[in-house]
Amino acid sequence: MNKSDATDDRPIGIFDSGIGGLTVMSELAKQLPDESIVYLGDTARVPYGDKSPETIIRYAVEDADFLKKCNVKLIVAACNTVSAVALDILKERFSIPVCGVIEAGAAAASGLQKKLAVIGTKTTVSSGAYTREIQKVSPSLEVECTACPLLVPLAEEGIVSWKILQGVLDIYLGKYLENPPEALLLGCTHYPLFTKEFDKFFSGRVKIISSAAAAADFVENLIENGSVLPNSGRVPPEHSFYVTDTTEKFLSSACRFFGDSITQAEQVSLTITEQF
Amino acid sequence: MNKSDATDDRPIGIFDSGIGGLTVMSELAKQLPDESIVYLGDTARVPYGDKSPETIIRYAVEDADFLKKCNVKLIVAACNTVSAVALDILKERFSIPVCGVIEAGAAAASGLQKKLAVIGTKTTVSSGAYTREIQKVSPSLEVECTACPLLVPLAEEGIVSWKILQGVLDIYLGKYLENPPEALLLGCTHYPLFTKEFDKFFSGRVKIISSAAAAADFVENLIENGSVLPNSGRVPPEHSFYVTDTTEKFLSSACRFFGDSITQAEQVSLTITEQF
Repeated sequence: MNKSDATDDRPIGIFDSGIGGLTVMSELAKQLPDESIVYLGDTARVPYGDKSPETIIRYAVEDADFLKKCNVKLIVAACNTVSAVALDILKERFSIPVCGVIEAGAAAASGLQKKLAVIGTKTTVSSGAYTREIQKVSPSLEVECTACPLLVPLAEEGIVSWKILQGVLDIYLGKYLENPPEALLLGCTHYPLFTKEFDKFFSGRVKIISSAAAAADFVENLIENGSVLPNSGRVPPEHSFYVTDTTEKFLSSACRFFGDSITQAEQVSLTITEQF
Repeated sequence: MNKSDATDDRPIGIFDSGIGGLTVMSELAKQLPDESIVYLGDTARVPYGDKSPETIIRYAVEDADFLKKCNVKLIVAACNTVSAVALDILKERFSIPVCGVIEAGAAAASGLQKKLAVIGTKTTVSSGAYTREIQKVSPSLEVECTACPLLVPLAEEGIVSWKILQGVLDIYLGKYLENPPEALLLGCTHYPLFTKEFDKFFSGRVKIISSAAAAADFVENLIENGSVLPNSGRVPPEHSFYVTDTTEKFLSSACRFFGDSITQAEQVSLTITEQF
């Protein structure tokens, strides 16, 4: 068997603090329809965005460890906060490949020439991780990051009122209206739900880069360059969903994030220490 | 010593999932200036509002257990979600008195005759706990509960834009504009931050009942009726703050909730299982 014929039927593992990573899973499922995917949402401890780095690292290691036990061939940290704070530690700690949405977003921003605006949670922004990753691939690009903490609850509640969204975007992005950046990188997996609203806010003058689509591109590249082997196509792909706290909210909100309904998610305990 | 002279210099313990309970502590500190108070905010696992009942109960027991170890004479569950879901279990499990903001809110609503609107988190509302508690003391009062999940992140971010708040209040409370209720009970400790906005939304036609002030009244009654003994007044009262995840956010937001700056909060681990 040639190296190019080698396959690996193990699933791809994705985790996030909650349901936001489903936007990444949705893009992955579209771009790589033959791959099985296991999703873990740590809904018992969501959100990670306002926790301390130490706590985020601990949670991320427990999440990745669960996916490792599911025999995945790749771990995607589909959580910008984890990617900002814990990715190097995950890469050191696990023998299988680990990738994060920030390196994926930075790759998607390569080719830009002038100014890039990045938006994310407070922890993602204060970590400086996007600026560091982007300047590795585009050293001369001006990067400005802005925390937009209200966009996550608005996305989770499915708010579509333009009056509210415009008011919130005014607070965070009003500073760009006179002199818009070349592109806006959505550095939080919840934000792709507002792609149309970002576009409307900037009257179509700013390119919108989704970190969810960027992550799917990044994984596709890992398969194309042989870092991860593709599914053989001999077994039908399966999508499995695990959460740490089964709530009505996960299943009811999942459709907006995943683009398709999810009827079943299994509740799991990440460590024996989480037992009551 | 007469029974009426008996005193107890142990502190009052208050816990909440995060910073919201500081509105309760603020009212307690105003109404009972001689009492020492210990505050615990479970900031590593905030918010509780969208967790399952089992998870909320587990967290509440760990929170109350921490306060018990601080040698408190009374435990105030200053979290509506915990009061809705876990209060009976806490009362059974702990030998010292335990009270919650829902029974306090119900007591404050006694005397109303017609219709009461209650607002809170999704879990608080879906628990039905406010309706049950209020109907114990006011059986003929019509009670309608509405979940307002966006108000917590708006309070935590310190949003004061009337355009945004009016838009959000329209979604949740617009149904009452034509035929307002007699009173609006703020069934979440974050909501007192928007007391002026609720008043403006209803053009002053609706009485606003804060569960934070109601809880302070309730504790004052427990002391007046002898269920809890008062501080002797011989030692200066102390206010102590503990959090499970020390973040910039707690100290920077605390002033808005507590009404005074908090310069120090000690980070604690609730159980040995929370160690990394």
